[in-house]
Amino acid sequence: MSNNPSFVLRGINDVIFEERPIPQIGDDEVLVEVKKTGICGSDVHYMVAGRIGQFIVEKPMVLGHESSGIISKVGPAVKNLKVGDRVAMEPGATCRKCDACKGGRYELCPDIVFAATPPYDGTLARYYPIPADIVYKLPDHLTLEDGAMMEPLSVAIHAVANVADFHSNQSIVVFGAGPVGLLCMAVAKALGASRVVAVDIVQGRLDFAKEFAATDIYLPPPMEKDETRIRYSERNAKKLMTDLGIEERGPTSIDLIVDASGAEVSIQTGVLVAKIGGTFVQLGMGSPEVTLPITTMLTKELNWKGSFRYGPGDYPLAIALVAQGKIDLKPLITHRYSFEQAVEAFQTTRTGKSSDGKGVIKAVISGPGVSLSDN
Amino acid sequence: MSNNPSFVLRGINDVIFEERPIPQIGDDEVLVEVKKTGICGSDVHYMVAGRIGQFIVEKPMVLGHESSGIISKVGPAVKNLKVGDRVAMEPGATCRKCDACKGGRYELCPDIVFAATPPYDGTLARYYPIPADIVYKLPDHLTLEDGAMMEPLSVAIHAVANVADFHSNQSIVVFGAGPVGLLCMAVAKALGASRVVAVDIVQGRLDFAKEFAATDIYLPPPMEKDETRIRYSERNAKKLMTDLGIEERGPTSIDLIVDASGAEVSIQTGVLVAKIGGTFVQLGMGSPEVTLPITTMLTKELNWKGSFRYGPGDYPLAIALVAQGKIDLKPLITHRYSFEQAVEAFQTTRTGKSSDGKGVIKAVISGPGVSLSDN
Amino acid sequence: MSNNPSFVLRGINDVIFEERPIPQIGDDEVLVEVKKTGICGSDVHYMVAGRIGQFIVEKPMVLGHESSGIISKVGPAVKNLKVGDRVAMEPGATCRKCDACKGGRYELCPDIVFAATPPYDGTLARYYPIPADIVYKLPDHLTLEDGAMMEPLSVAIHAVANVADFHSNQSIVVFGAGPVGLLCMAVAKALGASRVVAVDIVQGRLDFAKEFAATDIYLPPPMEKDETRIRYSERNAKKLMTDLGIEERGPTSIDLIVDASGAEVSIQTGVLVAKIGGTFVQLGMGSPEVTLPITTMLTKELNWKGSFRYGPGDYPLAIALVAQGKIDLKPLITHRYSFEQAVEAFQTTRTGKSSDGKGVIKAVISGPGVSLSDN
Amino acid sequence: MSNNPSFVLRGINDVIFEERPIPQIGDDEVLVEVKKTGICGSDVHYMVAGRIGQFIVEKPMVLGHESSGIISKVGPAVKNLKVGDRVAMEPGATCRKCDACKGGRYELCPDIVFAATPPYDGTLARYYPIPADIVYKLPDHLTLEDGAMMEPLSVAIHAVANVADFHSNQSIVVFGAGPVGLLCMAVAKALGASRVVAVDIVQGRLDFAKEFAATDIYLPPPMEKDETRIRYSERNAKKLMTDLGIEERGPTSIDLIVDASGAEVSIQTGVLVAKIGGTFVQLGMGSPEVTLPITTMLTKELNWKGSFRYGPGDYPLAIALVAQGKIDLKPLITHRYSFEQAVEAFQTTRTGKSSDGKGVIKAVISGPGVSLSDN
Repeated sequence: MSNNPSFVLRGINDVIFEERPIPQIGDDEVLVEVKKTGICGSDVHYMVAGRIGQFIVEKPMVLGHESSGIISKVGPAVKNLKVGDRVAMEPGATCRKCDACKGGRYELCPDIVFAATPPYDGTLARYYPIPADIVYKLPDHLTLEDGAMMEPLSVAIHAVANVADFHSNQSIVVFGAGPVGLLCMAVAKALGASRVVAVDIVQGRLDFAKEFAATDIYLPPPMEKDETRIRYSERNAKKLMTDLGIEERGPTSIDLIVDASGAEVSIQTGVLVAKIGGTFVQLGMGSPEVTLPITTMLTKELNWKGSFRYGPGDYPLAIALVAQGKIDLKPLITHRYSFEQAVEAFQTTRTGKSSDGKGVIKAVISGPGVSLSDN
Repeated sequence: MSNNPSFVLRGINDVIFEERPIPQIGDDEVLVEVKKTGICGSDVHYMVAGRIGQFIVEKPMVLGHESSGIISKVGPAVKNLKVGDRVAMEPGATCRKCDACKGGRYELCPDIVFAATPPYDGTLARYYPIPADIVYKLPDHLTLEDGAMMEPLSVAIHAVANVADFHSNQSIVVFGAGPVGLLCMAVAKALGASRVVAVDIVQGRLDFAKEFAATDIYLPPPMEKDETRIRYSERNAKKLMTDLGIEERGPTSIDLIVDASGAEVSIQTGVLVAKIGGTFVQLGMGSPEVTLPITTMLTKELNWKGSFRYGPGDYPLAIALVAQGKIDLKPLITHRYSFEQAVEAFQTTRTGKSSDGKGVIKAVISGPGVSLSDN
Repeated sequence: MSNNPSFVLRGINDVIFEERPIPQIGDDEVLVEVKKTGICGSDVHYMVAGRIGQFIVEKPMVLGHESSGIISKVGPAVKNLKVGDRVAMEPGATCRKCDACKGGRYELCPDIVFAATPPYDGTLARYYPIPADIVYKLPDHLTLEDGAMMEPLSVAIHAVANVADFHSNQSIVVFGAGPVGLLCMAVAKALGASRVVAVDIVQGRLDFAKEFAATDIYLPPPMEKDETRIRYSERNAKKLMTDLGIEERGPTSIDLIVDASGAEVSIQTGVLVAKIGGTFVQLGMGSPEVTLPITTMLTKELNWKGSFRYGPGDYPLAIALVAQGKIDLKPLITHRYSFEQAVEAFQTTRTGKSSDGKGVIKAVISGPGVSLSDN
Repeated sequence: MSNNPSFVLRGINDVIFEERPIPQIGDDEVLVEVKKTGICGSDVHYMVAGRIGQFIVEKPMVLGHESSGIISKVGPAVKNLKVGDRVAMEPGATCRKCDACKGGRYELCPDIVFAATPPYDGTLARYYPIPADIVYKLPDHLTLEDGAMMEPLSVAIHAVANVADFHSNQSIVVFGAGPVGLLCMAVAKALGASRVVAVDIVQGRLDFAKEFAATDIYLPPPMEKDETRIRYSERNAKKLMTDLGIEERGPTSIDLIVDASGAEVSIQTGVLVAKIGGTFVQLGMGSPEVTLPITTMLTKELNWKGSFRYGPGDYPLAIALVAQGKIDLKPLITHRYSFEQAVEAFQTTRTGKSSDGKGVIKAVISGPGVSLSDN
């Protein structure tokens, strides 16, 4: 049977709406009727470039992976969910058998089936089949849009709570005030940060960050002509520390740096700003290669860690912090589109603003036939 | 009273033997009659460059910091040592009051008094005063040369056992087969490594490494003309992995990379060779800035850590592993000099070989009046 | 010179006010004019029993160790404090040289000079000399009573934040709603607990706990005649779990149990209530020997940890959480006494209520000549 | 088809040989032809008592869970194994979906299908079906008996390497010199223990331990009449420490205690012998309830941890340490039986010696039709 409209990427900038068969589910799986899907930079990247690193779109692929929905069908072995439950979906089904899966780091599973990472279809369709243990019932007072936002929030949870093991009364500087950077700030605040510094090159984003979760904001000065990046970053780090009263030791020092920008100068500045003995988490993907002041990093015994997607416990913590009112996701959703407007939603995310000039943080597309205001 | 001949650096390439007063000691201190002192690359660097990074020789400074000796005098509050004890000296007296000292990471103490790091005098003298709690009695079957070698060995212990938390049955690749790199291999082997790969650009050093502690050796191919460093490193990493049957996951993957070379291509190659979810420890200081494949490091959630000097427990573990016969330091000492020959010893270390053409791993200078063969 | 009135314990129930000489201070020390001192159960215990375990009062000893004050004099090497600063005092000066001190666990230092632990004098005097690095300037908006309370709060911080490494969204059950138990609840709440269950055998204490920091309270049923303690505890654990909807796995399970009672049935009940794979921290001292269901503890891989006093970072975190408004210490101070009323203050703490029948949580004694309402 | 002779427990002391159907296997499973099976105390316990704790034999159950064999059939999705491979079998198939499984602690999975734990059949049969990812190919130079011993060895690995995180140059005392206690000693030695103390009440077992892996042995004195257990344990701990030159701090102190006896006095003695700040791992099951000196455990901040079965990485480490020659399992196998002699093998294990009076450490039963000397 086929009643499963899907938004399919066929090639670079070549998308189409297709009717696809309704997916079958296994004994341990559920079929989710997708209600809300956030658009992520990676979705846009696949659309405009056809690839991200070694992941190449070689056959038509449904886009989308930040989704919530309602359980439409449950496999016979499923106990934690029932038809009608409102849910957030963790869009990566892992193999469960490799060392990474068994060792508590399933984000590193080589055989993960991740929505809208080639060759696997994503969630921008009416129905999505998924193992029941990575589907989470939403508390009644959370919306389906909250549910869709659990995906980027879990990315931030993984970086800040899990990889960095951020604790109450620690301080953080986040480079990049896009959706994931903002969520990192929100997570740090929810975990009891003493100070949350937002760094971005766009004042409007900083203003939003300040209102949303940051205690301090910092706008880097322009790079000077003939200045190398690393010299600029040294100057930038010094200015940031002076402006905000930060030292490399003691009560004003910064415990954790998160780079959510992927920009070389941000990463360079970040490792210089981190306290002696501190931690740096790389989250943003941008410049594939970055020049780092490695001797300085050595002598302060910096701990640099990559953070990739999310692992065990990240989704539950994301949902709990929102349910407890410690994180408010609503301000982040700036644009809403119907399923039919998917192309426009992607366009908005790609350019950073909608046709009316309004800056976008997160655009959300409703599932086929779902109202924009469905809760 | 003055009967304390000392080897003093006054300026770039300007050294002199001076008679200095015998140091006074505090209640908790001991006076050590220095017997054996290894020459470290940093000693040489101060001699030829007058500085290392922000540490600048601005007034005459006694050189040397890898020393053993015999207790000559003990302060009234000292209980763990007595006159005549043969000892290894940990040459950094920390403040004991800062957060780093109290938090178990005293290697990061900002007020450390480190031998032969400006402005503090080193150990190349007859007498050296030092707090008793960082002086370690040598087991009877260890030599005073073993005692002097505990300093570089502790650097390796800190990196491999402490910072990297290396475990039995893990695998390691060490870049750079100089004294510290070799000691890292020896530590990994002593801790039960399943595989120890040595990488160096000099075949003779690799041959020594193989005999000393490595299970495998790897000589990188020459860089091609017009090849960038990062492209070369990618090719080098691929070749290393193919040649040695290493994969980025599973039983053949490498748990820990230690860079003891400071060379950009080594560091680049190292992060590419590390297993998914693995650890990289930076120990070598060379290029202050290094271009790193940061997106690759992120997606494999690499944990990059700087390792600086040594901290709590490192000296005791170093002594224990040698005492238990798990590490043999003797093969590393290739050259021995009397105190009067100190200039020649430095010259040998600087050029990498003695005047007879014999390659140096570690040159050891005996204290004033001490026989070369004193044990 | 002598102008240092002190409250001295000479033997069992034998206390006296003495004029003592004003203490000298060392280069790294400060002299604090003591303003507020909370009375701890251990102070009372020394008064009525003359000993706690192997610590025996063999010569006259000043009582008190939960104190704040104002800096009266600073040693020449002190940089972090100046005369007139309002401060909290961490009342244990450690040796700084042993493995525990250097390894980041100075609470285990064998040579700690702890106030009012024999043979060392306590803080119930006009002046107390103390190393400057364990004296903490109070933020302006905190009171001197807050400062005195930092001592028991640090005990709770050590147990919950440090030993148990409690995280946001975890759940806790605390046995014993005395001052330290209440503070453990407050710390858990401040660190983002999803649920804080208070258990006590006195309803009034539970009511207070509920108002202060607990989300849930539980009053154990009476023990039945002929019921052994362990059988009672099994019944109690089952009832607690049923009444509060707690299971041994999953979202309702309890991550951390803290026993702040020292009572055998509390400890037994606690290990049974803890989740599979959970943590139990022992804080209360009571029955020296306790019968535990060890096979059950094994099969659920319980992690049982003792928590003793406080270590690196505990005082700073205590002060920060109060300064940030996450913990309110004021409700805990139920009784205030002048220095001259010290005997009455001890009497109140010993009996659990003042002569007017009002239950005590914490009684605070002002320093000699200090007003009860001094802030 | 049925050609699958099986050794079945029907009730207390009621065993029978049955022909059972050859099991079907799933896509990810293999069928192993069982060659060698060690007898464990738990197997014997089910036979003589019909239960262990809440696990009750309510229907006929094949016994045995310490097995090796040869791959007879592989499911279509299996890649890591092929027919004919000699393998060790990890006899617990976990659910892979619960928090314990996904969080890296699958030994705590509530839905584990564990061989010969009711209601699941064990391995004492010709064929056993098992997921391929918990079946490990044996290196060629290991025997099938080695393969069977990987199960108890993994129990010891889990306790010593994983739960206790034992490191090179640490010291250990193991209470109980039965098979698992001996294996804990062997693991500690393989991991680089500086000292391995065996404690047992049978001199012959101590003599074996000394030859096998212990550096020191200790035979407790008899308990005196009218002496309580805890007083006896205090005396015993003091004597052990005096006899062996052990202190509660410093270089002679004991980092790790493992109780592999389950006896109350062993556990009591162990927590008293552990160093200040040390670790105790409970492995033996015996007295379900044990009286512990809890205040002493608190003031030394003891870390008491239960260790249950084995988790991720334990089997691979077990096999590696044997393959590297760091552990020799052969001396432990004292008795060998054919499948037909299974009853006699159980009898031997139960009584602790064979009919000829020879003490048993481990009895191994060959699979149906397999020769005793099959390698």
